[in-house]
Amino acid sequence: MKAHTEYLTLHTAKLRELVHLTPRLAEILGRSGVAEGFMLVSAMHITAGVFVNDDESGLHADIWEWLEALAPRREDYRHHRTGEDNGDAHLKSILVHHEVIVPITRARMDLGPWQRVFYAEFDGQRDKRMVVKVMGE
Amino acid sequence: MKAHTEYLTLHTAKLRELVHLTPRLAEILGRSGVAEGFMLVSAMHITAGVFVNDDESGLHADIWEWLEALAPRREDYRHHRTGEDNGDAHLKSILVHHEVIVPITRARMDLGPWQRVFYAEFDGQRDKRMVVKVMGE
Amino acid sequence: MKAHTEYLTLHTAKLRELVHLTPRLAEILGRSGVAEGFMLVSAMHITAGVFVNDDESGLHADIWEWLEALAPRREDYRHHRTGEDNGDAHLKSILVHHEVIVPITRARMDLGPWQRVFYAEFDGQRDKRMVVKVMGE
Repeated sequence: MKAHTEYLTLHTAKLRELVHLTPRLAEILGRSGVAEGFMLVSAMHITAGVFVNDDESGLHADIWEWLEALAPRREDYRHHRTGEDNGDAHLKSILVHHEVIVPITRARMDLGPWQRVFYAEFDGQRDKRMVVKVMGE
Repeated sequence: MKAHTEYLTLHTAKLRELVHLTPRLAEILGRSGVAEGFMLVSAMHITAGVFVNDDESGLHADIWEWLEALAPRREDYRHHRTGEDNGDAHLKSILVHHEVIVPITRARMDLGPWQRVFYAEFDGQRDKRMVVKVMGE
Repeated sequence: MKAHTEYLTLHTAKLRELVHLTPRLAEILGRSGVAEGFMLVSAMHITAGVFVNDDESGLHADIWEWLEALAPRREDYRHHRTGEDNGDAHLKSILVHHEVIVPITRARMDLGPWQRVFYAEFDGQRDKRMVVKVMGE
């Protein structure tokens, strides 16, 4: 059994931004030497998410509008009494989920034709870390 | 370590439909020969989901009503400028999540008494693929 | 390859409650002897969730208010025709998701500085089970 772990640091220009990760994940897979197994792609912060969907800019705008409707920015979150201002980012992270598992088959990410992996930054403009762990043989 | 991968093709009669997968997954587990490990059950399309909950028809009706309230069908999604009409299906997929991991213990799916695995089709009436990957020993 | 499985029984004093699991999970990891791998933390009931976020009481109050807004208690869920009264708990479980995977690196839970694992009870005051399964080497 092999286990291969890499950490990514993302620093988005905007406070809220989607980052397409698939090409970087394919490189990590190549370095892992794993042909059959699982790849965990997980945010290490609680104000970010990871999800799989389409790389289409109109859809991305829809996703942002939808996230803002379901988990809106507000002044009056109780969490803000700690001095934070990112209550909505925590809720968006729970909604989207913070990690995905990609199956690895024949040394490739076993994704459908339109599946792409995205990092969703909900409170960026600073260094945020992710962990990518591949386990298999 | 063993890895066993199978693909399912689902073609639902309705555009939106839940498909109970647990019996089929148990058969795949049997063919895998894995007694201890993880089973990943993952949609390969970005307009479908996979989740674990109860096999009760009233609850399923509640789930559909709830999904429609939180991620409604609409004409004016930006994604539709590409010619698509399934913007809601993408959002529903993110909401429900597109995959689950089932623990495998003593050669059985280690689920609670009421836990069942469902495929949630949000844009069906055509062939859609899933991947089921079992890894363990 | 090693696989180590433990079951937790939780019985919350309140009907709706968050239980911080991280210290208990670290103990299970220690007993597993796994240094590199994955830990699955999964509710075995369909009226509970597991998620990763911050251990901050104001945020927790925000999370409960938000969950109640998106998946409210109601009398008229169709599921209640079976005699149940916990339709909202099923929807909250789907929203939050019922499981997480924690990466294990150098015999530690490879979490970010503020990441903590929580069990979310949506219909408690009775024994509920969880499964924790560690796989790796």
